[in-house]
Amino acid sequence: MIDKLISKIIEKETPIVVGLDPRLEYLPQNLLDKYFKQDISLETAARAILDFNIEILNNIHDLIPAVKLQVAYYEMYGLPGLKTFIETANYAKSKGLIVIGDVKRNDIGSTAEAYSNAYIGYTPLYREYAQAFPVDMITVNPYLGTDGIKPFIDNCKRNNKGIFVLVKTSNPSSGEFQDLVTADGYKVYEKVAQKVNDWGQDLIGNYGYSSVGAVIGATYPHQLSELRKLMPNVYFLVPGYGAQGGRAQDIMGGFDNRGLGSIINASRSIMCAYKNKPWKNQFNSREFGLASRAEVINMKDEIHKALISNKTYF
Amino acid sequence: MIDKLISKIIEKETPIVVGLDPRLEYLPQNLLDKYFKQDISLETAARAILDFNIEILNNIHDLIPAVKLQVAYYEMYGLPGLKTFIETANYAKSKGLIVIGDVKRNDIGSTAEAYSNAYIGYTPLYREYAQAFPVDMITVNPYLGTDGIKPFIDNCKRNNKGIFVLVKTSNPSSGEFQDLVTADGYKVYEKVAQKVNDWGQDLIGNYGYSSVGAVIGATYPHQLSELRKLMPNVYFLVPGYGAQGGRAQDIMGGFDNRGLGSIINASRSIMCAYKNKPWKNQFNSREFGLASRAEVINMKDEIHKALISNKTYF
Repeated sequence: MIDKLISKIIEKETPIVVGLDPRLEYLPQNLLDKYFKQDISLETAARAILDFNIEILNNIHDLIPAVKLQVAYYEMYGLPGLKTFIETANYAKSKGLIVIGDVKRNDIGSTAEAYSNAYIGYTPLYREYAQAFPVDMITVNPYLGTDGIKPFIDNCKRNNKGIFVLVKTSNPSSGEFQDLVTADGYKVYEKVAQKVNDWGQDLIGNYGYSSVGAVIGATYPHQLSELRKLMPNVYFLVPGYGAQGGRAQDIMGGFDNRGLGSIINASRSIMCAYKNKPWKNQFNSREFGLASRAEVINMKDEIHKALISNKTYF
Repeated sequence: MIDKLISKIIEKETPIVVGLDPRLEYLPQNLLDKYFKQDISLETAARAILDFNIEILNNIHDLIPAVKLQVAYYEMYGLPGLKTFIETANYAKSKGLIVIGDVKRNDIGSTAEAYSNAYIGYTPLYREYAQAFPVDMITVNPYLGTDGIKPFIDNCKRNNKGIFVLVKTSNPSSGEFQDLVTADGYKVYEKVAQKVNDWGQDLIGNYGYSSVGAVIGATYPHQLSELRKLMPNVYFLVPGYGAQGGRAQDIMGGFDNRGLGSIINASRSIMCAYKNKPWKNQFNSREFGLASRAEVINMKDEIHKALISNKTYF
């Protein structure tokens, strides 16, 4: 799966993954009015969000290799929301995009297996199998250690899927536990990084990267560079670009000299582009898809320039 | 919420929470045959599981204070599975049980808020609010630190709900990261324990316990005793009893001298009681509910005896 992602990154000439993390507040007023005129319910919210997602996908799919769906924003809208999660994932796949489910699942082995089957595997069904929420790659939380991660790795092998394990997250308090220094001088996130590197050794593809990746926040540029050296075979999913404060120069440490090694996520800055400068002066709220497209092109350009000035190319 | 849980524990004279973590393999053959005769699908699986859960609940609801629903086993059956999750939760509530959603959710602040609203809060809906997957308490993962936990605590305050934060989990490899010794001599799980204790200070109820609790595995008896001292105001959710190997004597360290302080979870040993000695000789597979009841009574008795021999009473 990592080879497929990297091929798409090379084909689209950009390491951007757009986050479709929709909240109703992100939707333009005219879309909200259209849907909620008749009925205020989770179903209505989920239909409005699907409409919003599809309009954005139609406007950006040719520019990017992948999308990331944050499942929390779909769970928030209940069963109809999760139906929209599945429909958005399937629509994105139909447009040739790789779909990352940002689910951060974690549990003890037998239960982790259930999560793993739900997203990157198959659910056994009385002599048959079914797929619950099929995506290409997911994020997972490492706090429970190897036996909580193994069922995800097993499905990566069996079904050609990928995972990104949380190592150093983008939020302000990520350091509380992740940056604790252990008795042998390593920080907790470095200990996690070592394990992630080990976990992925059987899944290294043609570009030298494993289908077992890591999540490293764009908001911690120093750690990004340091971890790039510590985990030479691990691809990074880098959230925190744009609305959370990460800029193009901040993420350069996550790349190798081929311009590979990281896929950079932006969500709010692209979904809400029509509300923000400079696009709100150029597009009206009905043209939110065009504004998202303009912002994706802008972000591609920012990252491309930074890669060139850092002498890292595609 | 913690007062409500403790009152139920005292009323039912037992600190047992039964886990409804259903896999199709747990269901008796006659039930599987009945449902899958016509159609093999996620819908069929979800209907069969709902039937199984309700039969068990009908047989045990009068004996116990609470049930724990492991959402992974419902997600595995897709949207129909999650419908069964909601229906099981509502049915359990209608029988007077407290419902713990074992969801282990975690994310950065804004996203944690979405999860929090989904399970223990309200989803904003165009000037109204809706409930997505309403339960009374949930489990959460602390790896992202305070800002990833705060949205859950906020909903505990606003809506009289509770959370259990993973501290020391019951699985074999829980020590890989949780037991790392930090430079100041504390283990990572002890550092997490200190934070959990702090996070719950505003939510301490009439019994001296907070609605911000902790998950501590029954498989680590020594840590259970040690953490009981370190976190005097924190209620423990203790998984790992029964099928995972924890026994009554192992969990005594989690109790105070009133017999409070811990709620003990068993799942497989109760759901699959009809398959196991001694119940498989006394009940046929159609009587799986009666076997579960017998096993709950047996577990209550084991724990009660251990509490008495340890001089901890209700």
